[in-house]
Amino acid sequence: MPDFPDNLRPREPNGPDILRNERERSPISAQEIGVHLFSHDGFLQRQARVLAILQREPLLKKTQQSQLSRVDRFKLAVARGKLIRRLQDIHGWSLEDYQMAHYLVDEPTPYHLHMQMFRTTVLEQASDDQQAFWLPKIERWDIIGAYAQTELAHGSNVQGIELEARWDPQTRSFVLHSPTLTASKWWNGTLGRMANHAIVMAKLRLPQSSGGWVSHGPQAFIVQVRDLESHLPLDGVVIGDIGTKYGYNTMDNAFMLFNNFRIPHSALLCRYVRVDPATGTFSKPEKPVAVYGSMTNVRARIVHDAGLALARAATVAVRYTAIRRQFRDRDSLEPNSSELAVLDYSTVQIRVLPLLAAAFALHYTGRAMYHSYQRTRDEIERGNFANLAYIHGLSSALKSLCTTMTADGIEVCRRSMGGHGFGGGSGLVQLNNDYLAKPTVEGDNWMITQQAASFIIKKMSAAAEASSEFCEDKMVVEFQAFLQHRDTTPGFDVLGNDEDLCASFRWRLASLAYETYDARIVNKRRWNDLLLQLHRLSEAQAQSFLISTFLESLISSRELSPPAREVLLDLFRLLALTIVKADSYEFLRCGAVERASLDALPNRIQALMARIRPHAVNLVDSWMIPDYLLDSALGRFDGRVYEDLWHRAYKLNPLNRVTFNPDYRNDEIVKGSGETGMAILSKI
Amino acid sequence: MPDFPDNLRPREPNGPDILRNERERSPISAQEIGVHLFSHDGFLQRQARVLAILQREPLLKKTQQSQLSRVDRFKLAVARGKLIRRLQDIHGWSLEDYQMAHYLVDEPTPYHLHMQMFRTTVLEQASDDQQAFWLPKIERWDIIGAYAQTELAHGSNVQGIELEARWDPQTRSFVLHSPTLTASKWWNGTLGRMANHAIVMAKLRLPQSSGGWVSHGPQAFIVQVRDLESHLPLDGVVIGDIGTKYGYNTMDNAFMLFNNFRIPHSALLCRYVRVDPATGTFSKPEKPVAVYGSMTNVRARIVHDAGLALARAATVAVRYTAIRRQFRDRDSLEPNSSELAVLDYSTVQIRVLPLLAAAFALHYTGRAMYHSYQRTRDEIERGNFANLAYIHGLSSALKSLCTTMTADGIEVCRRSMGGHGFGGGSGLVQLNNDYLAKPTVEGDNWMITQQAASFIIKKMSAAAEASSEFCEDKMVVEFQAFLQHRDTTPGFDVLGNDEDLCASFRWRLASLAYETYDARIVNKRRWNDLLLQLHRLSEAQAQSFLISTFLESLISSRELSPPAREVLLDLFRLLALTIVKADSYEFLRCGAVERASLDALPNRIQALMARIRPHAVNLVDSWMIPDYLLDSALGRFDGRVYEDLWHRAYKLNPLNRVTFNPDYRNDEIVKGSGETGMAILSKI
Repeated sequence: MPDFPDNLRPREPNGPDILRNERERSPISAQEIGVHLFSHDGFLQRQARVLAILQREPLLKKTQQSQLSRVDRFKLAVARGKLIRRLQDIHGWSLEDYQMAHYLVDEPTPYHLHMQMFRTTVLEQASDDQQAFWLPKIERWDIIGAYAQTELAHGSNVQGIELEARWDPQTRSFVLHSPTLTASKWWNGTLGRMANHAIVMAKLRLPQSSGGWVSHGPQAFIVQVRDLESHLPLDGVVIGDIGTKYGYNTMDNAFMLFNNFRIPHSALLCRYVRVDPATGTFSKPEKPVAVYGSMTNVRARIVHDAGLALARAATVAVRYTAIRRQFRDRDSLEPNSSELAVLDYSTVQIRVLPLLAAAFALHYTGRAMYHSYQRTRDEIERGNFANLAYIHGLSSALKSLCTTMTADGIEVCRRSMGGHGFGGGSGLVQLNNDYLAKPTVEGDNWMITQQAASFIIKKMSAAAEASSEFCEDKMVVEFQAFLQHRDTTPGFDVLGNDEDLCASFRWRLASLAYETYDARIVNKRRWNDLLLQLHRLSEAQAQSFLISTFLESLISSRELSPPAREVLLDLFRLLALTIVKADSYEFLRCGAVERASLDALPNRIQALMARIRPHAVNLVDSWMIPDYLLDSALGRFDGRVYEDLWHRAYKLNPLNRVTFNPDYRNDEIVKGSGETGMAILSKI
Repeated sequence: MPDFPDNLRPREPNGPDILRNERERSPISAQEIGVHLFSHDGFLQRQARVLAILQREPLLKKTQQSQLSRVDRFKLAVARGKLIRRLQDIHGWSLEDYQMAHYLVDEPTPYHLHMQMFRTTVLEQASDDQQAFWLPKIERWDIIGAYAQTELAHGSNVQGIELEARWDPQTRSFVLHSPTLTASKWWNGTLGRMANHAIVMAKLRLPQSSGGWVSHGPQAFIVQVRDLESHLPLDGVVIGDIGTKYGYNTMDNAFMLFNNFRIPHSALLCRYVRVDPATGTFSKPEKPVAVYGSMTNVRARIVHDAGLALARAATVAVRYTAIRRQFRDRDSLEPNSSELAVLDYSTVQIRVLPLLAAAFALHYTGRAMYHSYQRTRDEIERGNFANLAYIHGLSSALKSLCTTMTADGIEVCRRSMGGHGFGGGSGLVQLNNDYLAKPTVEGDNWMITQQAASFIIKKMSAAAEASSEFCEDKMVVEFQAFLQHRDTTPGFDVLGNDEDLCASFRWRLASLAYETYDARIVNKRRWNDLLLQLHRLSEAQAQSFLISTFLESLISSRELSPPAREVLLDLFRLLALTIVKADSYEFLRCGAVERASLDALPNRIQALMARIRPHAVNLVDSWMIPDYLLDSALGRFDGRVYEDLWHRAYKLNPLNRVTFNPDYRNDEIVKGSGETGMAILSKI
């Protein structure tokens, strides 16, 4: 290829100069805010330490991975999964270090379920004896495990799964059998190609002396499914990968059917449930087991990670739109004024800056959930279950809201970058595709809001039915206060007072809670007729928590200097007021916000964006997301956007090594090869 | 593989029975509505005729294409592009037939720009002599052409492009030269690997007798860029494909740099502009050329196609969620009630049904725009340019709104299907990825709304400045009426009267138009400070047009039977009221809707959805989208959802022919192959 392009430079002003200027003109320190965000758990030190090791590995270079076929892409993921596990051995990494490595490599690893749901379920549901047998094998990766619950026809409704585990008293064993095609396990990660063991959820059926069967609902079995030598499925088991998906193509999501497959009595995880091998009788604890706790932990992590993912998209969008210039100011009096940075347009700011604010809110909220989980866990160990239902409900509401915000937000950031946002150089393609699983997994975002709403209705019932009594429950107390004053206008100063802004969110939550309580409890309306209202109620709770946590985190952070705090407070206000604006009428109707404030909102939001704008680059820098993770020409720290786009296209793109034959009358595709179209299809 | 799965059936009720029942219980006829939608231009007959031919071609089977690497995926697209062109020869297809084939095969073809922008530009901007020379070659595909305008640093702002075409009086030729890296052409489809010619937009620079250069802005040149024998770029030209993207990976979007590349005087397309070869003087027509017309036509097509794309997503979502069952009704008194269809939940309806309604609205709107374009074109040919600015502005507003609705809507449909919506069996993966280009191409959706707003402000100025005069302009008359009554409350009955509902949209448009006029014209605010308001104004116009056109199309359709019309009217109401709900406060503030109506909206919307629900399957059937185009296990006409998902996974997935070595201590990836991870990377 000719080398004259090597002598060309991008037009002025160039990216590095622009970013240097952006960084210098803002008085806030990215370093200071970064420490404020991450100092609590050594995140930044861990990131730096692990990153240095990963960047030495050619196998972990990301530049070409989007070029691969599904089969090769998966092979690469397997190779990387093995390498990272070996690096763990070599460098003596903790579990957190190992997870950091996967976060930075940034692809779902086909080994993921082994150390997650497989191991966790053994820890939580296996008896001590079972743990003594299985855990050493799991920790050493002598076996590879997965978690098989969801089926072709049932996901959300776990009670509806069809796979059966029938107890055979003769041989004192269980028989796993899939009575229908829809009983096939489906979606189970790590199982499609990798695992040789799995936790298998199956409906336990015990024979009755009278002749029939009685079902005891889904129970967990630990089952070997593949041969340890040949790695082929055992007789009576059919397993495979379900195929390409929207994202997560480095994961081997499985199908799995059983044909009268026999497993021993010891396969039933029996920390809490038991089938007596002699009598075939079933026993379980009187109180339902508290498994919500770990789900809350998982969701706290999801919310925290949602913040990181959104910050990543915002980092790319802010840096690129600060560099990108397009159009002169049409009202400028200077005839030769230079083109404006795209980030200076309010139509770009309105899309990117509230999402940057949201990333901070999600970060603080994830952390608050994690602390809440820790506290509640401690309480549970002391026998106090009071807060369990609250944090389970809240975690449903937050998981739903936060993953939707991030899934939508990544795409908004991507689109804010115009054409180049659609190109592979954005670094947001795989992020977007993979992240879009999140609104569905761990509880569909439109389904689990019922759990949050259900809890809130209970609290409103308690408040309404005992409105004059003293109560310790914070939510009940707030609802009581609302009920006493709901005919008045609270008169919150949402534009002038940050606490009032939070109070307006709480007032609106209480108002929606009361309406829903009135519909369901007082007027006995059918649950399914109220689903939209329940969803709104859950969203209102999550938004209120998000906003309050944002403000509280800023107020309680002693380490923040006044200029940094003021900019972060502006972000808080921008996010809160953007939400108010989107739901203006709802806030108005219940009196949480007055008309004069709503009418002033557009100008206020625009003024906040103008105040935040000069600090935007430093604000995204404060997230300290390394270039290796961003993998983005548009979002590079040094601003060499156009050079990198050019380099990727001119030097790295394998398609440019193929010369085509464009003549449609000729079957040949690659010039001089004689290869026809059918040759490509027959490759698969 | 074991064959016991072949004997398994899905659980009851099965998909085919469910869909049969859905189709029978609704009294409306999909056939009737289908004819109503498509009869005007023989669309359905063409679809059937072309489809029969395509389905015989093994190369056009879609089942495995998502498995391929980028290079192979592109090769396949080239092979298909050639095949379809050959089929055109064989079957004597018209241009519409040829386009139908591409619509059904459903991938951007690498030949796309040749018959579109390349040919169109020659038709519009080449002189008669130039056309006589070039058109026969183009029609015969003796040459393959592309269109190179956008550059690395400039897209929206065409005036900012950097590529130069300097006139050399000595040799009477132009010299194309890229002075910077950012002057590289970028994004130009069909050019990266396929084309040997291109329309090249370059800044024309003519030497001054005084020694300097004078620029005459971007002009179009027709340029040979590759050798017709070797298909390699000519000396002084660097061309290649820019790499993988979010979608459109079957298109070879290009980069292209010129290094003092000489082209003849005849390269400048000279229907309207001219450089005198003897004197080097430039001439152009006194009036700017009316090129808006064809852009409106392109946009009409984009809006119409947005309807088809959204209908396709809605077809998949409605059929699948009608079949999918999950959870029993918790308020049911029957202990053994069966699980509910997911589409019976209002939380699913609220996502899918307004989008189904939107598909109809987009369809009617695209058709109305096309008629508008035809009328305006006839007027222009008679020398009447009065409507040109109106339809150009409106087409900007509609392109922006409609492609955003569809891009967002496809994803909403996909997510409404939960887990299986994330799987490849949805048939929406490539549609989503490819469609996401639309909000950016042909004018970025957040940028072009300024064009619409600018026109509306002019009309409001006219209305305000001559409010008592008689005027022919429909929009001015409406604005005058608004100005006369804007202190009154119009009292529209938006819940009871369809015409009033449309009137409330027009009232809100007029109100926003007045506010914007007041800010810009009266108070002289800076244009760039008003961008968000301008965007809202454009959206309001587009929404008003969409809603009115929907209603008018139903009222004026004589062929619709009363039951069908009533269901379609419900769809109209659902869409309109959903928009009102989303912007409640805006409608309230200007008096277009009253509080009592807003408070009644949630119940009204839910009631409408309940009325539409029984007809949902027939309504999507009426779009007559063939299974071949859907390529969806979830959306198949016959409802065999689970069988198809199983078949794709169990029989077709090539990953299941690879047995992996899961031992992390062992470098080997494929069991027994000895192949390591680096072997995969080194393939590229």
